[in-house]
Amino acid sequence: MEYTGTGIGQGVAIGQTIRMPDPLPEPRDERSSRGTDEESARAAASMAAVARELEKRGASAGGTAKDVLEAQAMMAEDPSLVELVTAGISDGKTAERAVFEAFASFRDQLAAMGGYLGERAADLDDVSQRVIADLAGVPAPGVPQPAEPFVLIARDLAPADTALLDLDKVLALVTSDGGPTSHTAILAREKSIVAVVGTANALDIADGTTVVVDAAAGSVLTDPSAELAAHVTQRIAERSAAASGPTGPGVLADGTAVPLLANLGSSDGADAAVALGAEGVGLFRTEFLFLDAGDTAPSVEQQREHYVRLLTAFAGKKVVVRVLDAGADKPLPFLSNAEEENPALGLRGLRALRAREEILRDQLTALAEADAQTDADLWVMAPMVSGVEETRYFVELARELGIKTAGIMVEIPSVALLAEKALAACDFASIGTNDLTQYTLAADRLLGSVASFQDPWHPAVLRLIGEVGRAGAQLGKPVGICGEAAADPLLAVVLVGLGATSLSMSPSALLDVRLSLAGFDLETAQNLAQIALAADDAASAKSAVRDAADTAQKVRQP
Amino acid sequence: MEYTGTGIGQGVAIGQTIRMPDPLPEPRDERSSRGTDEESARAAASMAAVARELEKRGASAGGTAKDVLEAQAMMAEDPSLVELVTAGISDGKTAERAVFEAFASFRDQLAAMGGYLGERAADLDDVSQRVIADLAGVPAPGVPQPAEPFVLIARDLAPADTALLDLDKVLALVTSDGGPTSHTAILAREKSIVAVVGTANALDIADGTTVVVDAAAGSVLTDPSAELAAHVTQRIAERSAAASGPTGPGVLADGTAVPLLANLGSSDGADAAVALGAEGVGLFRTEFLFLDAGDTAPSVEQQREHYVRLLTAFAGKKVVVRVLDAGADKPLPFLSNAEEENPALGLRGLRALRAREEILRDQLTALAEADAQTDADLWVMAPMVSGVEETRYFVELARELGIKTAGIMVEIPSVALLAEKALAACDFASIGTNDLTQYTLAADRLLGSVASFQDPWHPAVLRLIGEVGRAGAQLGKPVGICGEAAADPLLAVVLVGLGATSLSMSPSALLDVRLSLAGFDLETAQNLAQIALAADDAASAKSAVRDAADTAQKVRQP
Repeated sequence: MEYTGTGIGQGVAIGQTIRMPDPLPEPRDERSSRGTDEESARAAASMAAVARELEKRGASAGGTAKDVLEAQAMMAEDPSLVELVTAGISDGKTAERAVFEAFASFRDQLAAMGGYLGERAADLDDVSQRVIADLAGVPAPGVPQPAEPFVLIARDLAPADTALLDLDKVLALVTSDGGPTSHTAILAREKSIVAVVGTANALDIADGTTVVVDAAAGSVLTDPSAELAAHVTQRIAERSAAASGPTGPGVLADGTAVPLLANLGSSDGADAAVALGAEGVGLFRTEFLFLDAGDTAPSVEQQREHYVRLLTAFAGKKVVVRVLDAGADKPLPFLSNAEEENPALGLRGLRALRAREEILRDQLTALAEADAQTDADLWVMAPMVSGVEETRYFVELARELGIKTAGIMVEIPSVALLAEKALAACDFASIGTNDLTQYTLAADRLLGSVASFQDPWHPAVLRLIGEVGRAGAQLGKPVGICGEAAADPLLAVVLVGLGATSLSMSPSALLDVRLSLAGFDLETAQNLAQIALAADDAASAKSAVRDAADTAQKVRQP
Repeated sequence: MEYTGTGIGQGVAIGQTIRMPDPLPEPRDERSSRGTDEESARAAASMAAVARELEKRGASAGGTAKDVLEAQAMMAEDPSLVELVTAGISDGKTAERAVFEAFASFRDQLAAMGGYLGERAADLDDVSQRVIADLAGVPAPGVPQPAEPFVLIARDLAPADTALLDLDKVLALVTSDGGPTSHTAILAREKSIVAVVGTANALDIADGTTVVVDAAAGSVLTDPSAELAAHVTQRIAERSAAASGPTGPGVLADGTAVPLLANLGSSDGADAAVALGAEGVGLFRTEFLFLDAGDTAPSVEQQREHYVRLLTAFAGKKVVVRVLDAGADKPLPFLSNAEEENPALGLRGLRALRAREEILRDQLTALAEADAQTDADLWVMAPMVSGVEETRYFVELARELGIKTAGIMVEIPSVALLAEKALAACDFASIGTNDLTQYTLAADRLLGSVASFQDPWHPAVLRLIGEVGRAGAQLGKPVGICGEAAADPLLAVVLVGLGATSLSMSPSALLDVRLSLAGFDLETAQNLAQIALAADDAASAKSAVRDAADTAQKVRQP
């Protein structure tokens, strides 16, 4: 039987399935037969046991996972929660029910606060499940840990799940919920795990079923024939060989160069990106420098030191740095602490920096100083630019502080619609397809209920990209792509056809995109772009381009 | 001296200023010399006195103001607040300080919750000020109530302020903060009060200064000459005469008809709209029917009854009804109760209705039944349509249920970019410029810190409007405008030049728009549209069009 969903990347895998266990049933609301003291003692013992267990797992996981798990351990023994549990028990409830209700009440309060705290609601659910499981003497639901590699099937993976996942054991991820920007999808891309997300009915697949998970086709096939299994195993071997082979620059079949760059969130990933063939950095996010700095912005010296490390790793190559992109969704104590109803439409990116110009000045100064000390080709760009005036503001300030190449992110529809004027006022543009899609379709890219709208194949989004590409060609200014769209091998060809002059992506996607570009010449890419633009919606754009691309490749390799 | 801001409408006024009083100074944090019992008694007495006063005012105000004031009266005696005040006093604080801190703490909690509750924070501030004023034996800050008509100068007006405002006494409103979609601006438009908002330094104007408030020019001029004062008085008389004169249909100087329609939120306003010359209804919002219904959606019968009343009031005229536009920002218990991080980008409008199709079916059925019983020309449209597939879905369902004319709101950039395909799939489009501007500029229309982005004069927004207008002209399908942009008399001319075939607005704006349209022929309107499209930003678009319009009118009336 075949299930279909959204494939992440181009990989393929074969293996036996294991399903994430269902959550425990809700404890019944019945009077305790044990008496208050005994129930209180049971609750206290289980909460402590879970806290110790989470601490232990945190210590063994290390890194970010450690922080998440230690925070959960603290939740398990939070004094206000304990108080609420005790109150429930005093009312005659069982420990299970009192724990369930207390956590649920905290959970709802957290969820109502929204934002970062709201997202912690799922962590509380997880702790609640663990305590109730401990009380009931059953294993806690959570990531299975079998000895053999397996295909994991889940509704969607929570951060706490993935922190504990032994990635070497996971052949593929299949989720029934979640879209291409879900946590599962991001993890799959980062770690190059084969994944198909949003796969309806995937939870029906029984444990131990052999499946072929084909991300390129967006399909999950159960009980493959021996012939298909052999074919898949060969494809896996070929991809593995290609991945370990030499990596050249990005180039179309007719020799047109399309530099392939890496998206990086810290200079730590620089060496790995170079090893995977990144020809430079197309998007260097600087938020982590500021998030780590605590209550004040990092000093010019601290920033310069980090930028020098980054630029040194890419000596002789292009490095595009995005200045701080913060707002009410990523609040920083020194930049903004306003509550916003719609943070994605709020005072973020350049808007927030302009309100606190000294932070922007410091960052540009640190970048210019690092540039002077190193041999990379530094380009600097501003996020959340909506028009011409903001472009001029940023470019003038950047030049004043010694930046040689200054550009803008195109992620707001208005600046794409004024691309020619905006590009005339700066040195380059880089299109952030994730946010551009979010705003063009008015659909929150992180909200599950509107995830189907978040598809950069949408012809309206492609039209805006094409307008920026055309303006870049007319003015002779580079137009890069740095959103997830560039990591889709077929869409990458369309983007080049729309005028993109470079593509930047998670380093793990470089291989597939490089292979794909080599299969098309520029004229074909431009034809495919026209086919996509003529479509009614994202799905028909994608399928029409896929059909036309297959035909074009058959003509080349008959 | 001249102050400039954003004028609302075209009116002009002259009169003496009164400034909203400053908030009381923060009570000092010093130890009480009175003793705990006396301070507690003082606090209790003042909180009770303020509660009684607010109840009394509520009873005399009636309507929505009554609800707001009664809610405030309850805040003044909220038991948890009283407890917090008592605790502060037990710590040795004065009653003033304890009240100040208790309210501030509640205020911050409310503000942190965001959304509707967050907005109530300002109401708490107001109650806090009143109690502290009562304790100190000084008058509470608030709306002044002099015997003579006056020009009110304020930072911005809160809902509680405007509920108590004697509008017959207010010649004009001038605010230093707030933009064209602020509460003050909306009030001014609804009630046809002359207003200039966002007027920097307006708070410097001393009480009793004579000022000319010119909304058309967006200016506030102090101490006018006798000559200017006479001229202004004459303009006021002329406008007043025009307003009470006969009202014809909207028409350009060359005879091109541009029907002028009313935006209505309930059938209650129908008669007033007809009296002001509305040629029909361009946007009938149906949310109130659902908000009033409580925990379930209103029945088909309840809805039909209301629609019959509406359609009867506009017999022989066009009435465009928008189906329910709800989402996480306007939650309805039977439709959606999800928490969303960015409700403006969430499951709202048609997206939410599609998830609960029976609600949409009931509404379309009620509309079709009401249409069959009456003689108006009923058009029905869906909000938050993002593309072609959604357009087809809505139109098919509407036709199945007996709606003769079905169309879409254009308020998401993607559907404007696919206007030709979307219009081919429906009968008409109506452009909601408020949301279209919000999404195109990625700036929350209700958020003060990004209010400057919310300007429909932005050339990117005008380009999208122009694309829809062009598609409508090619296909022979009507393209209306129903956002605030249509109420700006000069922008209205540009919108017609971009292809709008009708304009819908608050009935109070009909007079000014009708006058303005009569001053231009279609060719001039189209030229003005081209001038606006060629501009870099909203401000330069507006000023370039104003200059060109002045020249064009001088040529016509030399």
